[in-house]
Amino acid sequence: MTQHAAPTLPLDELAAVFGPRLSTAADELDRVARDQSRYQPEGRPAAAVFPESTDEVSQALAWAHRHGVTVSVRGAGTGLSGGAAGYPGGLVISLERLNRIVGIDAVNRLAVVQAGVINSDLDEAARGHGLFFPPDPASARISTVGGNIATNAGGLRCLNHGVTRDSVAALTVVLADGRVVHTGARTRKNVVGLDLTSLFVGSEGTLGVITEAKVRLKPVPEGAAQTFRAGFRTVEDAGRAVTAIVNGEYLPEVLELLDAHSVQVIEAFHPSGLPVDGQALLIGQFTGRHALQAAQSVAALCRSFGAADVLIGEGDSLLEARRLANPALSAHGLRVSCDVGVPVGELAAVFRGIDEIAQRTGRMISVVAHAGDGNLHPTVDAEDTPEGHAAAEKVIDEITRLALSLGGTITGEHGIGKVKQHELSWQLDEPTRAAQLAVKAALDPAGILTPGRSL
Amino acid sequence: MTQHAAPTLPLDELAAVFGPRLSTAADELDRVARDQSRYQPEGRPAAAVFPESTDEVSQALAWAHRHGVTVSVRGAGTGLSGGAAGYPGGLVISLERLNRIVGIDAVNRLAVVQAGVINSDLDEAARGHGLFFPPDPASARISTVGGNIATNAGGLRCLNHGVTRDSVAALTVVLADGRVVHTGARTRKNVVGLDLTSLFVGSEGTLGVITEAKVRLKPVPEGAAQTFRAGFRTVEDAGRAVTAIVNGEYLPEVLELLDAHSVQVIEAFHPSGLPVDGQALLIGQFTGRHALQAAQSVAALCRSFGAADVLIGEGDSLLEARRLANPALSAHGLRVSCDVGVPVGELAAVFRGIDEIAQRTGRMISVVAHAGDGNLHPTVDAEDTPEGHAAAEKVIDEITRLALSLGGTITGEHGIGKVKQHELSWQLDEPTRAAQLAVKAALDPAGILTPGRSL
Repeated sequence: MTQHAAPTLPLDELAAVFGPRLSTAADELDRVARDQSRYQPEGRPAAAVFPESTDEVSQALAWAHRHGVTVSVRGAGTGLSGGAAGYPGGLVISLERLNRIVGIDAVNRLAVVQAGVINSDLDEAARGHGLFFPPDPASARISTVGGNIATNAGGLRCLNHGVTRDSVAALTVVLADGRVVHTGARTRKNVVGLDLTSLFVGSEGTLGVITEAKVRLKPVPEGAAQTFRAGFRTVEDAGRAVTAIVNGEYLPEVLELLDAHSVQVIEAFHPSGLPVDGQALLIGQFTGRHALQAAQSVAALCRSFGAADVLIGEGDSLLEARRLANPALSAHGLRVSCDVGVPVGELAAVFRGIDEIAQRTGRMISVVAHAGDGNLHPTVDAEDTPEGHAAAEKVIDEITRLALSLGGTITGEHGIGKVKQHELSWQLDEPTRAAQLAVKAALDPAGILTPGRSL
Repeated sequence: MTQHAAPTLPLDELAAVFGPRLSTAADELDRVARDQSRYQPEGRPAAAVFPESTDEVSQALAWAHRHGVTVSVRGAGTGLSGGAAGYPGGLVISLERLNRIVGIDAVNRLAVVQAGVINSDLDEAARGHGLFFPPDPASARISTVGGNIATNAGGLRCLNHGVTRDSVAALTVVLADGRVVHTGARTRKNVVGLDLTSLFVGSEGTLGVITEAKVRLKPVPEGAAQTFRAGFRTVEDAGRAVTAIVNGEYLPEVLELLDAHSVQVIEAFHPSGLPVDGQALLIGQFTGRHALQAAQSVAALCRSFGAADVLIGEGDSLLEARRLANPALSAHGLRVSCDVGVPVGELAAVFRGIDEIAQRTGRMISVVAHAGDGNLHPTVDAEDTPEGHAAAEKVIDEITRLALSLGGTITGEHGIGKVKQHELSWQLDEPTRAAQLAVKAALDPAGILTPGRSL
């Protein structure tokens, strides 16, 4: 580890602002320097601060700017791409104490929250007003609203409610030099100047530190949710059914797919009677007044695409298997390794292509997908050795190029961070990357904010 | 008029590219130098070009960049804020010939269109596939998709379908120096780098020239639309009803409000039996399978807020009055002068405040509103003299500050352009404006693209 920068930094200036909320303890620094990706930071940060206000974030950034210190920004550290990982000798700004729900305006369906509020805490507070917070990443119970916004996180409910960007009305952001900007408005429509709100959403810590957000809430639908599960002989058949469903009369709230291997791993992890005879499972949910009618209609559609076992159940129970996918794959020693997207009409083609890659490379590839969005998380079996990982990475690269060849994207919801940066040029041409870097340089000319990642 | 720059420009270089599609004719230049706002260009542009491809736009911009020529960009010139107005001695890039619908991908609900395609032409083409293009500005039959995107235009259908930004998946944009960038993706979810797509949407020609777009389409709802019209004794009562409707069970596709003065002007322009006894009219539309049930439910809600005359009709006929508002006000010598927004819960308060301003200033103010969005278009009666206009402008400034005091915005859908630039600092603080200008400078360092407007 290289820590050469640390001893010369005037940490006393930070200590004067943060007192005990400045940390230089090795164990604490190691904790806040990691996210949940496979990226290993190359050295220990010099310090971490835990601000409790926008002004404190501003002071921390002004300090870093003055002294040319590299900064990483952290919500709950649940990122899967290394975007929040610490820099050797750098400053970690952790927003975990910026965790106040400032207010909920039920009439205008807006919540004002600090960046470190946990997603499910906001959702719960909103439900007290008959509203909910649509963004629903798998990590919702532990991840923060700010992290959600900084990565434009996806999740299970995007099909009907859009991505996180669609739920953000306004932001308070501290720029790299400590200046505070206020973007957006409380109104539904606002065309004043450039849409800096959308620009900061998904910028992965490269343009500024989001400290507060006004987010849009939606009314909780009436009645019980209705969930269906359909088993298909092949994942390609399931893909064809998904394409038909999203172009049909009833758009589900959730439409998830588990291939046969994922189903087997989940059933082994937590037996619940899933079919382990090689079926791919499609799981969808409807809410609102006509949920049952919709679920029955889509169940029939699934049968017409060859589904055999089709169940409908009230509430969330049939969705539990999907929510267990990540822990089950992790327990199996597998990491969610890939986050490609394709236009939904290409689902059958991408599954066919992934199967060909698996056959050709002799690798087991399992796929969990936000199928309605065309967003796939293929996981490649890997021996836990450097060579094993490197070989799996090559397979992931092949899957990524396959998705691109079908008009897709290299990342649907996890972001670029450090892990996917080598793939950027596969999707973006040189002038487009240059434009992104020019915008970055305009807002962070000294390049202290999450440099060398995401763009 | 100042035309001093024109004679020295090497227009022959442009002529070599554009041939007869380069114009220096005074009448043509006067035509393409104006939009539909009250802004009068300060002099005649030197030339206009009518490109038919992204490459030709690139060549025009490279030429302008090389010679430091100021550029304005024009779709159909329907803007209301002067954003597309020509610059004295400048170059007008008119995209009216870039008008090809490149393709419609019905399965993935995407259309690829050149910027100069007329909105209603795209919509009609989409309907051939059972789909429609949600953005619906009042100008849809004459305005272009590119202009729509460049201004993030609103219209009647935003309440349910969002603003134009929500319908844009990807863009081809020519930067000020002629480089071509490609933003976005064909997938629903895409988090690759910064969201330049959203940044260019609504940038009003300041960051680049949008030449092609991939836009999202939606399925045409089943069955006939159902429209309701409710008359309220006061516009404040109508405002309270709107707040209740948008927080109720059925969200209308359209929810428009006409105050008593607007109703009288429209009825005088085109008699159709509208009540002219001082009622404010709320007009809403539902589509889809449960449209009638929804319209009946909301009609009952209107009655509970004091509405007397409540009608329900199939199709669009009850909406016709709303669509006549702009021509009727224009025929009356009135310009749509203002485009403020408030959070929808403040509708009654903003109407009360506008009434107070009218009383205090002795001015007649009429209001047409996209009420469901909280987006108001107040029009101030003005004598057609410089003094009369100046006095009306002062009243508009008062209305604008009123909207801001209620947590609103100075423009909901018309954009800043030139007309509203003096209001910018009322809404945006200095660091936020500086950040916008920094982004502008990053993408257009020479400042040739629509300078001195919008930001």
